[in-house]
Amino acid sequence: MTLEELSARQRAFADARAWGPFHTPKNLVMALTGEVGELNELFQWLTPEEAEAAPTDPDARARIEDEMADVLLYLVRLADVLDVDLIAAGNAKIDRNETRFPPGVGRTALER
Amino acid sequence: MTLEELSARQRAFADARAWGPFHTPKNLVMALTGEVGELNELFQWLTPEEAEAAPTDPDARARIEDEMADVLLYLVRLADVLDVDLIAAGNAKIDRNETRFPPGVGRTALER
Amino acid sequence: MTLEELSARQRAFADARAWGPFHTPKNLVMALTGEVGELNELFQWLTPEEAEAAPTDPDARARIEDEMADVLLYLVRLADVLDVDLIAAGNAKIDRNETRFPPGVGRTALER
Amino acid sequence: MTLEELSARQRAFADARAWGPFHTPKNLVMALTGEVGELNELFQWLTPEEAEAAPTDPDARARIEDEMADVLLYLVRLADVLDVDLIAAGNAKIDRNETRFPPGVGRTALER
Repeated sequence: MTLEELSARQRAFADARAWGPFHTPKNLVMALTGEVGELNELFQWLTPEEAEAAPTDPDARARIEDEMADVLLYLVRLADVLDVDLIAAGNAKIDRNETRFPPGVGRTALER
Repeated sequence: MTLEELSARQRAFADARAWGPFHTPKNLVMALTGEVGELNELFQWLTPEEAEAAPTDPDARARIEDEMADVLLYLVRLADVLDVDLIAAGNAKIDRNETRFPPGVGRTALER
Repeated sequence: MTLEELSARQRAFADARAWGPFHTPKNLVMALTGEVGELNELFQWLTPEEAEAAPTDPDARARIEDEMADVLLYLVRLADVLDVDLIAAGNAKIDRNETRFPPGVGRTALER
Repeated sequence: MTLEELSARQRAFADARAWGPFHTPKNLVMALTGEVGELNELFQWLTPEEAEAAPTDPDARARIEDEMADVLLYLVRLADVLDVDLIAAGNAKIDRNETRFPPGVGRTALER
C-alpha cells in the first residue's frame, strides 16, 4: 500500500462517519499534537538504553506502533485537507537540507 | 517516490553526516515534537476561516509544506531507527478504528 | 500558597518516591510535552464557541484543571531541576515583549 | 511578585494590544504547544549529561529561561481566560497524586 492509498482509506473512513466538519486544519494540528504527546509519554521515563531496547518488547512495540500510526494518520489527514503532497514536500525538504547542512561540517550540541 | 524510498534517502542523508549517534529514539521524539510545535505556530492565531484559506497563499503554503515535511521526515526517521513499518502500522490502526468507531454512531464534542 | 511553595511540595513528593533519577531535564521536557498533548486532546474537536463554554461544564472544567495542573507541575519541577526562577523569567520576558511588540502596532494573522 | 500578579501583568499587556480576540482557549493551547516545541528543540540533541550541564552555560541558560518563560506566560494566560486558579489546581493534583502513587511503591519504566 502506498501513502496515497493510506490517505484515501483514511479519507473514506472519515467521510463514512461524517467527520469532515471536525477535520479543520486547526483541529487536525491539535489532534496531531495530542498523538505526539502520547508518543512522548511512552518514552519519557526510559533511559536511553531502555528506549533503544523498547521495540524488542512485544507490548512496548505494539504501543509504539499504535502511537506512531496515530501520528501518521493525522499528518496524512491534514495533508489531504490542505492538499499537500507529503512525499514531494519531504523530498523537497531533503533537497534544501543538502544545501543547509553540507556533509563533513560538524554541528555543536546546542546548534539547530 | 514511495515512503520507503524517502526513508532510505533520509537515512543516507543522516549517515553522510554521521548523525546516527544523535538519532536516538528519545531525541527523535523530541525533534518530532519541535516540528509539530512549529506547525502549531503557523496556525495558532488564524481564525478557522483563515486556516482553511492558508494553502491558497503561496507564502503560507510554502511554510506549511516545510513544517509538514519536517514532521514527516522525523517520523520516518524514528520509524527507521525503531524498525517500524509506518504504512502497515497506519493500516492496522484504521482496521482497529473501524471496530472502535462504527459508522453512524455519533460522538460528543468532548469525547475522545 | 505561592508558586515557590508549590514547587517545594512537588520536590518533596518526588523525593519521597525516589523519582530524582527519572527527573532529568530531557525526561521532564518530554513529560511536560505529554501533558500539553493531553490538554490539546480536551480542546481539539471543540468549536471555538464550545471551547469558550467548556469551563462552565463541571466535568469539562475538572478535566481541564487536571491537565493544566499537570502542565504546571512538570514546568515547576523542570524549573526546580534547572534552578530557574519561573516568575522572574516570566517577568523578564514581558519586559522584552514590551519592546518587541509596542502597543498600537498591529500584527498580521500569520506573523509571529 | 506572585503568579497572580504576573497573570495580571500579562493580561494588561494583552489588553493594551487588543489581543483579546486572538486569545481564545484553542489558540492559547496551540501557542502553549508551540513554546513547548521550542523548549524541546533546546534539549533534543543534547546527551543527558549535556542537558544537566546546560544551565551552567550563560547562553544556554538564557535560551532555556526564555522558552520556559514563554510556556509559563501562555499557561498563565490560558488559566486567566478559562478562570482557572493554577496554584489551587496544582495543589489539588498533588493531593490526588499522593493517593495514586503511595511512597515506597515502585513503578516500572514503561508505567505511567
